[in-house]
Amino acid sequence: MNFRELASKYKTPLYIYDLDYMTKQYEELKEAFKGRKSLLAYAIKSNSNLSVINHFAQMGSGADCVSIGEVRRAFLAGVPSYKIIFSGVGKSDEEIREAIEKEILYINVESEAELGRVELIAKELGANCRISIRVNPNIDPLTHPYISTGLHDNKFGVDIDSAKRMYIRANNSEHLDPVGIHFHIGSQLTELKPIYESAEIVADMVRSLQSIKIELKFFDIGGGLGVTYKDEVTIKPYDYAQAVLGTLKGLDLTIICEPGRFLTANAGYFLTKVLYEKKNGAKRFVVVDGAMNDLLRPSLYKAYHKIEAITESKSELSEADVVGPVCESGDFFAKDYMLPTLEHNDLLVVHSAGAYGFGMGSNYNTRGRSAEVAVKGGESRVIRKREEFEDLIALEKDYLVK
Amino acid sequence: MNFRELASKYKTPLYIYDLDYMTKQYEELKEAFKGRKSLLAYAIKSNSNLSVINHFAQMGSGADCVSIGEVRRAFLAGVPSYKIIFSGVGKSDEEIREAIEKEILYINVESEAELGRVELIAKELGANCRISIRVNPNIDPLTHPYISTGLHDNKFGVDIDSAKRMYIRANNSEHLDPVGIHFHIGSQLTELKPIYESAEIVADMVRSLQSIKIELKFFDIGGGLGVTYKDEVTIKPYDYAQAVLGTLKGLDLTIICEPGRFLTANAGYFLTKVLYEKKNGAKRFVVVDGAMNDLLRPSLYKAYHKIEAITESKSELSEADVVGPVCESGDFFAKDYMLPTLEHNDLLVVHSAGAYGFGMGSNYNTRGRSAEVAVKGGESRVIRKREEFEDLIALEKDYLVK
Ligand SMILES: Cc1ncc(COP(=O)(O)O)c(C=O)c1O
Ligand SMILES: Cc1ncc(COP(=O)(O)O)c(C=O)c1O
Repeated sequence: MNFRELASKYKTPLYIYDLDYMTKQYEELKEAFKGRKSLLAYAIKSNSNLSVINHFAQMGSGADCVSIGEVRRAFLAGVPSYKIIFSGVGKSDEEIREAIEKEILYINVESEAELGRVELIAKELGANCRISIRVNPNIDPLTHPYISTGLHDNKFGVDIDSAKRMYIRANNSEHLDPVGIHFHIGSQLTELKPIYESAEIVADMVRSLQSIKIELKFFDIGGGLGVTYKDEVTIKPYDYAQAVLGTLKGLDLTIICEPGRFLTANAGYFLTKVLYEKKNGAKRFVVVDGAMNDLLRPSLYKAYHKIEAITESKSELSEADVVGPVCESGDFFAKDYMLPTLEHNDLLVVHSAGAYGFGMGSNYNTRGRSAEVAVKGGESRVIRKREEFEDLIALEKDYLVK
Repeated sequence: MNFRELASKYKTPLYIYDLDYMTKQYEELKEAFKGRKSLLAYAIKSNSNLSVINHFAQMGSGADCVSIGEVRRAFLAGVPSYKIIFSGVGKSDEEIREAIEKEILYINVESEAELGRVELIAKELGANCRISIRVNPNIDPLTHPYISTGLHDNKFGVDIDSAKRMYIRANNSEHLDPVGIHFHIGSQLTELKPIYESAEIVADMVRSLQSIKIELKFFDIGGGLGVTYKDEVTIKPYDYAQAVLGTLKGLDLTIICEPGRFLTANAGYFLTKVLYEKKNGAKRFVVVDGAMNDLLRPSLYKAYHKIEAITESKSELSEADVVGPVCESGDFFAKDYMLPTLEHNDLLVVHSAGAYGFGMGSNYNTRGRSAEVAVKGGESRVIRKREEFEDLIALEKDYLVK
């Protein structure tokens, strides 16, 4: 990847996505499940650029969506309706209605109250809505609390007993068709055991439903596969698949997997230019043109991102905070990071920025969001234009009365 | 404020700003400085809606800006150039150039390296650029680490010794005109002592500059006045002004104050509708249609916001987490908050949402940002349109090749 050339061609700050790396990740995971009917439903939330979704769609991927906006993205990007799943803990009536009308694969229901709304709306539409239920297996995923989702004290899914009641109700309804079961215990998982234990619990649930003649077709294991940001030892797709498949003995189910981060995180780079170096007392700062409005993960999760300096500087390394122009102490990309002395216009490459990067971007401090560029087979092209000032004020300028 | 009517007229999620409250806050603070030449330069970052800026501009306010985007907003909203300040730790060359060309009041310089860039660019333009220098008085502001900015181990400003060197350099330059001095030690300040101590240090600096014939005109005390989110006892504007003025004996300077939160925080309400209630084990959740993409402060700072339920429910109160539809455990507005049992379509009003609310909003999970509505003299009107799906994909759809 010739970062210097990309930066000079497209300017900074800039997101770069290596589509070939995404392909490789997708194929490795798909291959791991080859003994079974399986569908990878790309978790759009991790990187929702239309061209990225389209890239996965072309390889046969489905889409895991968490808002009707994401469902619309999936359709626009060419994902067929029968490969689209709509999950999420808070779906509005309008969203449910549109999802039913679009006849997606299923709505993933996360509460009894939601089941009621879906049934009501399906009835109004004279439809029979395919659903799955998100089960919360109450297993500690051993990850960051903000991205841990499989314990009872968080908002996701329903416990096993409620799920069973809900399946029975759905099965008895003319307007609901329970076809799947779903769990997702957290993101950036690096331990196999919690996944295995959860799959066991959920597979047992499938068997107990079978015994009361509720036959499901889809076993949706969510996403969550971790990646290496720094030195994490990650789960191998093969081991992951084997662990899950091992729990499904005697069950004829299509596996659905909803990878996000695994496909996109390490395909992405955030490029930012050095504006100045400065010292406050003994403390060294490298001030760059990117900021927390571009990449929020360090501020929000204290997430680690590897940073690579592209510079002529041959100086010794010393510790520096890499900070952006936003007026918050929380606006940083790294703290106490070893870097050479840097000059105005040197480049920093923030690695592992392809997942939960651009998508969490804002216009805080009236900063336009970066452009996004895709690289494939050595060719680069813009897939989202840099935001200009005019874009930022487009929805408010007509209301300004002086 | 008739929240139910506003919600039904403008839909949810929704930001509401009480402009009359902003007026009251502005006038109280302005009045506190009445014995002196003073300028309130509204800190646009706290709420950058053009109509909000315009509201302050009509009362005579200036603007404290931290990006060229904010400077452009200030101009558009009717703030005269001689009341506009451009601060911020990382200004690009293009930003500096535009600020000089626009002949704003001054550029607030935050490092020696930046001083060099400003001088170089002013020279290229054949200009003489008014500057002030942000001094870091190394005083602990006793606030949240993310919004504390006055200690050496953060990125803002320069220490006293560097500042002195920089003033001498600027004074000797044909292209720099040092007119002001600036400090801002943090946001949401509730203690007067650190402000007083900082002002003392900076006022002494002004005297020491006088003794070498560098005469400044502006004493810029930044923003930072705290507000009551829960039960904070705040600093009275009168006491604030007296403390600062007390340090300026014998100095003939115009005071500049850059309030953000004080003017806007408690003028703002975020309205969100209840989608469902759910329980996971013993834990109760109220799922609403607003989310962290609308209001990030609880996730980012664990900030407290008072929540008011608008409901017919007469039930007893019990603890609940108020959570949004975004697929992150960090997506919440409150934890363990006492609320009655709520129904689908009941309203929750999240208070104190006028500062650092909408401006930090994102499109995470492909959620459009809320509309913004201003209320003045009992009349409401939209000041920013709700984002639609088409707005979200406008800058990327043309690059989708299938
Ligand atoms: C239901 C569901 N599926 C898939 C994902 C994607 O997770 P990851 O990016 O860790 O693979 C998430 C992430 O939060 C999720 O909540
Ligand atoms: C230089 C400067 N001035 C003013 C403000 C506004 O602060 P507040 O909203 O706390 O008044 C800030 C906030 O970060 C700032 O950095």
